[in-house]
Amino acid sequence: MASGVTVAVVGATGAAGQMTLRILEERKFPVRELRCFASERSVGKSVSFRGESVPVRRIEAEAFKGVEIAFCSAGSAQSREHVPMIVKAGAVVVDKSNAFRMAPDVPLVVPEINAHAARRHRGILASPNCTTIVAVMPLKPLHDAGRLRRVVATSFQAVSGAGVNGIDELRRQTQAWARGEAIVPRHFQHPIAFNLIPHIDAFAPDGYTGEEWKLVNEARKILELPELRIAPTTVRVPVFTCHSIAVGVETETRIGAAHAREILARFPGLRVCDDPAAGRYPMPVDVEGQDDCVVGRIREDLADPNGLHFWVVGDQLRKGAATNAVQIAELVVNG
Amino acid sequence: MASGVTVAVVGATGAAGQMTLRILEERKFPVRELRCFASERSVGKSVSFRGESVPVRRIEAEAFKGVEIAFCSAGSAQSREHVPMIVKAGAVVVDKSNAFRMAPDVPLVVPEINAHAARRHRGILASPNCTTIVAVMPLKPLHDAGRLRRVVATSFQAVSGAGVNGIDELRRQTQAWARGEAIVPRHFQHPIAFNLIPHIDAFAPDGYTGEEWKLVNEARKILELPELRIAPTTVRVPVFTCHSIAVGVETETRIGAAHAREILARFPGLRVCDDPAAGRYPMPVDVEGQDDCVVGRIREDLADPNGLHFWVVGDQLRKGAATNAVQIAELVVNG
Repeated sequence: MASGVTVAVVGATGAAGQMTLRILEERKFPVRELRCFASERSVGKSVSFRGESVPVRRIEAEAFKGVEIAFCSAGSAQSREHVPMIVKAGAVVVDKSNAFRMAPDVPLVVPEINAHAARRHRGILASPNCTTIVAVMPLKPLHDAGRLRRVVATSFQAVSGAGVNGIDELRRQTQAWARGEAIVPRHFQHPIAFNLIPHIDAFAPDGYTGEEWKLVNEARKILELPELRIAPTTVRVPVFTCHSIAVGVETETRIGAAHAREILARFPGLRVCDDPAAGRYPMPVDVEGQDDCVVGRIREDLADPNGLHFWVVGDQLRKGAATNAVQIAELVVNG
Repeated sequence: MASGVTVAVVGATGAAGQMTLRILEERKFPVRELRCFASERSVGKSVSFRGESVPVRRIEAEAFKGVEIAFCSAGSAQSREHVPMIVKAGAVVVDKSNAFRMAPDVPLVVPEINAHAARRHRGILASPNCTTIVAVMPLKPLHDAGRLRRVVATSFQAVSGAGVNGIDELRRQTQAWARGEAIVPRHFQHPIAFNLIPHIDAFAPDGYTGEEWKLVNEARKILELPELRIAPTTVRVPVFTCHSIAVGVETETRIGAAHAREILARFPGLRVCDDPAAGRYPMPVDVEGQDDCVVGRIREDLADPNGLHFWVVGDQLRKGAATNAVQIAELVVNG
């Protein structure tokens, strides 16, 4: 494919779609031709790619003829509706929605962890939920070193995880506050400025949210540990970009903090920032714009020699979404 | 003491001291005479109590003659310096700093949990750290119901936990952002607006912060469970008031979510707000100004029948500080 690939980006005007275009540029993905798609109300707009303006087209079978790789970042309902048609038109689809992630014949891929799974695709490859990706990146090397027995994960999730609307909501509410006006929720159910909302996605009858179940089910599939015990709590916080997760793990064999620091630092796509005495640990404002997930606060459990705790922060628009999707496409293109 | 008590408030101009004055008013504490104290630079100012202006005095032995109850909320170094002198002058001191909490002869009291311990005081009673109080309130009834085996606690702590300076910092940085200016840290080491800082109090060589060790040691002392296994992570978040904590517990006998909800709702000082399908769970903006700690997101562990998870939010200036201190003084006054 030295001469390049015909690429489609579906949902090109959204936060994830826009970031996909940026990452395709940054990683010099071999795009020969780019076609951009979005919902009806964005048709006629244009988006920018490599300094050129690309028109936004209507999603219809005709328009996908000749497309080799399609990135879909338009939401689950849209993916369910359009992806089968795009695959039928001949493209390999990298889908970022929740629509196909748990389908047995769809690989759910984080390239640093399970690139081998990508080979088994039948036209669709799924990219995991943003929180899952940030969480599993450090879990994989720790599992390889000591076999995971259980995981407790509490997330602090940025508003941009909810797309452009989430960003607008925090910006609008904060500006209203600065003008001395009331904070009125529109996109989220409750105020998010100066608040915390322990509710992301819909609640199941068991009291867990869809976001929490995604973390459990997707991590099990990616790590190929169908019985892995995970206790999730996911919380929306007034941060624009980057998901942060406080993680506790218990392993079958002892790893220890010093060794954990080494193996995490060696793992591709991870960076260790862990010099707390010097005030160095990962924070959203520092990790924003980076493709690596950053781990710090690595320490041993106070009571369990096989227990470790850490704090991981990842730019969920990059590694948590667009970067991971483009990496998956690179696996497909490079065979 | 029907005719009332002579009360001193030390650190009366700070966030905790100011709230102590409000709580003394609200709970109609039998104040016959009030004397207010603060550091040298506040001497000469005045504070308001029951609609009257009270001058702020210099902290010196003379001025404490006749004081029966003194509230100290002026920081650990100040408490270490002044409390012995105040006790010597004849007052019983309710100290809100970290100075004496772990001293074996100083009761560390949350009145709903260990009022009995207050009786053993020798002039000083300590009120626990704000995060500890919010965490132990639900832990106590769960322990009584099923015996705690281990606790994992991840905190989301408001800036007002760092006093007036913390509030000013978030306000100032957010207003700068709204004007399009740079966010410059002054009080905290890093920006707090739109950011998360996984660092509260100083780091120990084991990688845990002072704040995390307080949670462990103080919870063990209050619950009288010196071996209790607690895994803490404490994080500063851009919220003005209320500490929120995601807690996972494992008990020796199974409690179950439904029964947990009942026993938590019955416990004095706790309120259950747990109807997630209706969007009801505790959040900082709703709990601010309340004396009760509020528990929600009560659910069973996905893999452990003896495991429970919940989310508790408490106004750390009230129950986490001033309300708890005034309740301790009520125990002393009422014998």
